[in-house]
Amino acid sequence: MQELKGMPVVKSLTEGFLTETETLLKSNVIPKLSVIRIGERDDDLAYERGIIKRFQAANAYVDVIALPINVTQENLEKTIIHLNNDKSVHGILIFRPLPKSLSEDRIKNIIAPEKDMDCMSMKNIAQVFAGDSGAYPPCTPQAVIELLDYYNIDLTGKKVTVVGRSLVVGKPLSMLLLTRNATVTICHTKTVNLAEECKKADILIACAGAAKMIKNNYVHSDQIVIDVGINMDGDKLCGDVDYEDTADIVKAITPVPGGVGTVTTSVLLKHTIQSAKRAIKFESK
Amino acid sequence: MQELKGMPVVKSLTEGFLTETETLLKSNVIPKLSVIRIGERDDDLAYERGIIKRFQAANAYVDVIALPINVTQENLEKTIIHLNNDKSVHGILIFRPLPKSLSEDRIKNIIAPEKDMDCMSMKNIAQVFAGDSGAYPPCTPQAVIELLDYYNIDLTGKKVTVVGRSLVVGKPLSMLLLTRNATVTICHTKTVNLAEECKKADILIACAGAAKMIKNNYVHSDQIVIDVGINMDGDKLCGDVDYEDTADIVKAITPVPGGVGTVTTSVLLKHTIQSAKRAIKFESK
Repeated sequence: MQELKGMPVVKSLTEGFLTETETLLKSNVIPKLSVIRIGERDDDLAYERGIIKRFQAANAYVDVIALPINVTQENLEKTIIHLNNDKSVHGILIFRPLPKSLSEDRIKNIIAPEKDMDCMSMKNIAQVFAGDSGAYPPCTPQAVIELLDYYNIDLTGKKVTVVGRSLVVGKPLSMLLLTRNATVTICHTKTVNLAEECKKADILIACAGAAKMIKNNYVHSDQIVIDVGINMDGDKLCGDVDYEDTADIVKAITPVPGGVGTVTTSVLLKHTIQSAKRAIKFESK
Repeated sequence: MQELKGMPVVKSLTEGFLTETETLLKSNVIPKLSVIRIGERDDDLAYERGIIKRFQAANAYVDVIALPINVTQENLEKTIIHLNNDKSVHGILIFRPLPKSLSEDRIKNIIAPEKDMDCMSMKNIAQVFAGDSGAYPPCTPQAVIELLDYYNIDLTGKKVTVVGRSLVVGKPLSMLLLTRNATVTICHTKTVNLAEECKKADILIACAGAAKMIKNNYVHSDQIVIDVGINMDGDKLCGDVDYEDTADIVKAITPVPGGVGTVTTSVLLKHTIQSAKRAIKFESK
């Protein structure tokens, strides 16, 4: 069994990013992401630290805008519009879920699609659906693609089963897989004989958000298993795949933690650099 | 073998539409679709006649705006903006493909999503992807759903294989099927062992645009086959399914012509009525 760790993917991507930020610096541009954090949730703070570390390693900026937990819709929207118009800002990330008093639907229509790094805007969602290579897909599904690419796992004609149909992972991931010419099956809670469906796949991708649901009878010895889940099992992190139950059977598997999740922040950086490069192109027109 | 004809679906839908247009008339509203036709292509003219007939049967209006084949982008856009702002118009349909001199991409961003009856706008595309019940999906995939509903074919937990991944049929249809809790497999030209993949399905939907590609080794005796294809075989219409080769084997099948295509115009009318109802609701707020 090969363990498909995220860190080598991150290292390889970071090398490429360093070359790109160096080139951008010659045009006096430093890629900059503005993170909007509302309140001080522990997981937001952990994600924020991860982003800052990853961006610093590639000579890119992160600017955190910390808003109080009781921020009004009006002030949040004003903040976003200000960032939309600020030419030094190439990407915007808003930590979700938002407090219940705020409308995410309104935000989706306000954030500038060209700075929308995690696919909140209608335009980005539609472009991902259309298979447009210019879109910024949500970071997690794109991280799966980066990981598969790094390990030279070709998708053309492969049977890929995606367990989960969320708008954040399952659906956009299915579209990215289609663009890579995989034959894609989308499973979910209403799927009959889920184990059987999973076992038919060359590549099985679990993004259902259910701890350790993929067991040994879901997998086979020639299968590549990608675990997108991040769940708590007591006080320990675990994926949607029961690693102990399956790892010895399959051909390759991503660990949790240390797999797909590790790559997500690099995708955020990739998108921010892309946006900075596009902004230069646009200005020079 | 049961032949799943489109006409009984149309008749049943029209009855419902008549009740709805009667109710709307009490508020002095007649649902109105504006069709923009550029030039005089034979298939556009045939589609136009079909639309007018279907709308008349349910007491709804169609207004055809015939533009010359050499219409400028500017004048086309002006026409759409005028219709966007005209409160008596509830739906807009632009016959496609546009002449090559015109930009469809620009039109997509101009047509008002709430009047966009065949899913050109980014907002509608994104909503279909998100599984939003308020969206107007493209007419053809919605026609498949109407036909399945009419014949009481439940989709929950069913294995549905969709052959074709276009943005007009395959992808949005897959999303509509997911919303109905089907387990969806999307196949295409790069799928390995297509016949085998198709044979595994409870419901097989062909929307690849390749004449008679589905043969007897793609189907089984307990299968429902939906043929979305409209192709020419010499001077005769045929579907993506080789009807003569498969019809005697399967449980049920849609004919071409006389199947899904027959229902498309009714979906256009359904959307136009929905839009008229929403406009009244909006005005009374």
